[in-house]
Amino acid sequence: MDHKKKLDELKNRLREVNDLRSAGAVLAWDQMTYMPEGGAPARGRQMATMARIAQEKLIDPAIGKLLDDLRPHEESLPFDDDDASLVRVARRDYERATRVPPEFMARFNEHQVESYQAWATARPADDFAKTTPHLEKTLDFSRELADYFPGYDHIADPLIDFADTGMKAASVRALFADLRAAQVPVVQAILAQEPANDSCIRRHFPEREQMAFCEDVVRAIGYDFQRGRLDKTHHPFTITFSTGDVRITTRVREDYLGECLFSNIHEAGHALYEQGSDPKYDGTPLAGGASAGVHESQSRLWENIVGRSRGFWEFFLPKLKKVFPDQLRGVSLDAFHRAINKVERSLIRTDADEVTYNLHIMLRFEFELALLEGSLAVRDLPEAWRERFQADLGIAPPDDKDGVLQDVHWYDGTIGGVFQGYTLGNVMGAQFYQAALKAHPEIPQEIGRGKFDTLHAWLVENIYRHGRKYTAPELVRRVTGADISITPYIQYLRAKYGDLYTL
Amino acid sequence: MDHKKKLDELKNRLREVNDLRSAGAVLAWDQMTYMPEGGAPARGRQMATMARIAQEKLIDPAIGKLLDDLRPHEESLPFDDDDASLVRVARRDYERATRVPPEFMARFNEHQVESYQAWATARPADDFAKTTPHLEKTLDFSRELADYFPGYDHIADPLIDFADTGMKAASVRALFADLRAAQVPVVQAILAQEPANDSCIRRHFPEREQMAFCEDVVRAIGYDFQRGRLDKTHHPFTITFSTGDVRITTRVREDYLGECLFSNIHEAGHALYEQGSDPKYDGTPLAGGASAGVHESQSRLWENIVGRSRGFWEFFLPKLKKVFPDQLRGVSLDAFHRAINKVERSLIRTDADEVTYNLHIMLRFEFELALLEGSLAVRDLPEAWRERFQADLGIAPPDDKDGVLQDVHWYDGTIGGVFQGYTLGNVMGAQFYQAALKAHPEIPQEIGRGKFDTLHAWLVENIYRHGRKYTAPELVRRVTGADISITPYIQYLRAKYGDLYTL
Repeated sequence: MDHKKKLDELKNRLREVNDLRSAGAVLAWDQMTYMPEGGAPARGRQMATMARIAQEKLIDPAIGKLLDDLRPHEESLPFDDDDASLVRVARRDYERATRVPPEFMARFNEHQVESYQAWATARPADDFAKTTPHLEKTLDFSRELADYFPGYDHIADPLIDFADTGMKAASVRALFADLRAAQVPVVQAILAQEPANDSCIRRHFPEREQMAFCEDVVRAIGYDFQRGRLDKTHHPFTITFSTGDVRITTRVREDYLGECLFSNIHEAGHALYEQGSDPKYDGTPLAGGASAGVHESQSRLWENIVGRSRGFWEFFLPKLKKVFPDQLRGVSLDAFHRAINKVERSLIRTDADEVTYNLHIMLRFEFELALLEGSLAVRDLPEAWRERFQADLGIAPPDDKDGVLQDVHWYDGTIGGVFQGYTLGNVMGAQFYQAALKAHPEIPQEIGRGKFDTLHAWLVENIYRHGRKYTAPELVRRVTGADISITPYIQYLRAKYGDLYTL
Repeated sequence: MDHKKKLDELKNRLREVNDLRSAGAVLAWDQMTYMPEGGAPARGRQMATMARIAQEKLIDPAIGKLLDDLRPHEESLPFDDDDASLVRVARRDYERATRVPPEFMARFNEHQVESYQAWATARPADDFAKTTPHLEKTLDFSRELADYFPGYDHIADPLIDFADTGMKAASVRALFADLRAAQVPVVQAILAQEPANDSCIRRHFPEREQMAFCEDVVRAIGYDFQRGRLDKTHHPFTITFSTGDVRITTRVREDYLGECLFSNIHEAGHALYEQGSDPKYDGTPLAGGASAGVHESQSRLWENIVGRSRGFWEFFLPKLKKVFPDQLRGVSLDAFHRAINKVERSLIRTDADEVTYNLHIMLRFEFELALLEGSLAVRDLPEAWRERFQADLGIAPPDDKDGVLQDVHWYDGTIGGVFQGYTLGNVMGAQFYQAALKAHPEIPQEIGRGKFDTLHAWLVENIYRHGRKYTAPELVRRVTGADISITPYIQYLRAKYGDLYTL
């Protein structure tokens, strides 16, 4: 068999894995949108079966053999050749899947289900103690998982690498230390001032009109409804079945305009990335996004840098006023811009504004490292959480429900590698946007005229079309000519909030 | 391994097949309801992958070995024991799947796709000649398929057995000959009379109100919306993902009340059957319906025997008039009952009324046998079609588009075994209903009061809960104490239409 045939064989096998996962994704989407209650028990089983068979197909030694056989061919090609990249990325996926014994994953998954169930009742009851034995076991499992990838510098490295390939505890820690040093003074300066008045977005906004407006907004920024759709769910999400079918969901609060609007733009940002992946990668390991962080860079770029900019509302506020003339009568562009960028102390990560958000993430990241290192015990988490909150944000949660119990992540997944992507996303988003502005300084003016295609096309060309070909560090270097850096983000924050507050 | 362990192993393997097929069904449902256009290419591939892997898992020799090993255990149990039935039905499925070489099925499927595509352009162009070579090939493939099941009396027998297990060409032919002899005089007597006036259901009925009313109707007859949902599609259908999730779809014509209403009741009839399958069969080969014919018996029983009865509208017409007061002002129960039971000469099977419908089916069934026997050539089909239509229905199609090209069945499937189920359904539906009346003579009065639970519970107890445990002939014997017989159907037809027309 020559390498052409072997490559085809590899692609066919991986396409099968992809189809099983895509089918699982359709089942998940249906479960969260239209499935009747009675469908739940069988659906859980069906999704588990899809995931299991996909995994069995992926770890087939025949794939390992093909990857070995293709190595000389891969090495004869340039790094960014499509075939070379496919083999490289497939090998990474294959090694991740095969190094971990299936019986370990089965035990871990079983534990995760139990742990999630404990959390689901413990959170409303504000009963952290109930989750302690589960979290301790999760910590053991997470360490064991990491140990299947020996040779790490820090035990969190393999876990971080799963979500943000190419990043390590040390590199993220260093980046976050700098970010913290630069960002905390901005937060403190703002929080010392009179808070913005956001009453204009907290009036009564009927759902139907909100949904129609949001649909117009995401269409305007480039979300393609021929290759996607928008539905309502309890939690907003983006899900991909193929480059031609990338769906988003949202939720609506009639007493708060920000919910539907910004969650829509956020999810549309993820979806633009997935819709922009080169169609020829469809069904291969190269389809999708580079990393959790790069994905988040796109949702946050569109949501915050574009969607909460003054220029964006220069164009959209008059349209929004036509939809809600009574609610928004007399609201100036400045007042609206201040309202949607209100900065405040908040307990809940998912409600946090753009300025304080990274503080929520960084404390979680540091706790993950400390837990894995053994320098923090699970039982001491609530107290550490309160102390750190007080120090960073000037408030402490009155209970664990809105403290350490608020996120599902540690309770249904691993401890380690879970949170860094959100802040890496903010950082890389600003860095990418700066590069786009360097190439096209007219972008902010265009946004003010409701024109998004220059920015969108630049992102497609430089980021989206490459799918999973490059890791985040590779992509950032390729796009910006530099390593991941906090400077553009801090510059962006200082400039934007310097206009809104006295810094 | 004892038989308990082997049975569990068999169930686990078959559950996997079931989960893959259910996932394929969810993908199909999504494709026909909410999928954006751009999703089509990948979706076709994903569905094909699900079907292929399900087939590979089903024909695994390990299943054959388990079935062999379990034979002594099966034979030690009563025929209708659940375990014995599971092994029996699983063996039937396994033998069907394994006797046909995968390479033959691959070639046949490839041909079916080409043939379908030829039909899809030939039908609007009224170009039967274009489909001739495809149909001839389909006939060869159908014969070859049948030959993988040697020992038949008639070459159509294996094909009939796929859809209506336990039935053969000879038994269906005999039944249809009797039916024809009894039914044609009824048809001719009615068609000689003044046609019913159905103008009252051909006014303007807005979609939203029609959909809401139909939802109320199917809920009233017992369709469980906790375990299903109703959506709009181009062609109505019922689809099952599990006993807890059986969905129906409908379509609406604003200028014709009958479309949405009766297609809804029809599909709800199929769905009541699937929802009524014993939940403990979920994910096993015993879940589902006994045969194409028994399935159709339930859709037709609910649509025609119940849904087009005078009693049904005694209850529902006043409610319908509240929804459409202007459109239905002054329409009497008798006039409405006559309108929804209008008998007329029609070219298109799917538009045919209850009385002429079987004539449409029987001619197709006979053509299938004649084609397989070689006594009719594909090229002579259009002429045979016209002649037979003229003889049976007193009209001949002016073109092939609304003649031999009207149904997709032969063009995307086999020739043989395709149509008999529709008429068997009409026959068995009446037979089952007669048995229900014998047990509960109060059912017609209850229907007049909008009470359907006695009938529904009887059907669940005697038919639905058994799923695929019995073949159609076994089930009919068990439920009615007799073999499949046309007598109840002809009695029903004579009684009902004797009230509406002079017979």
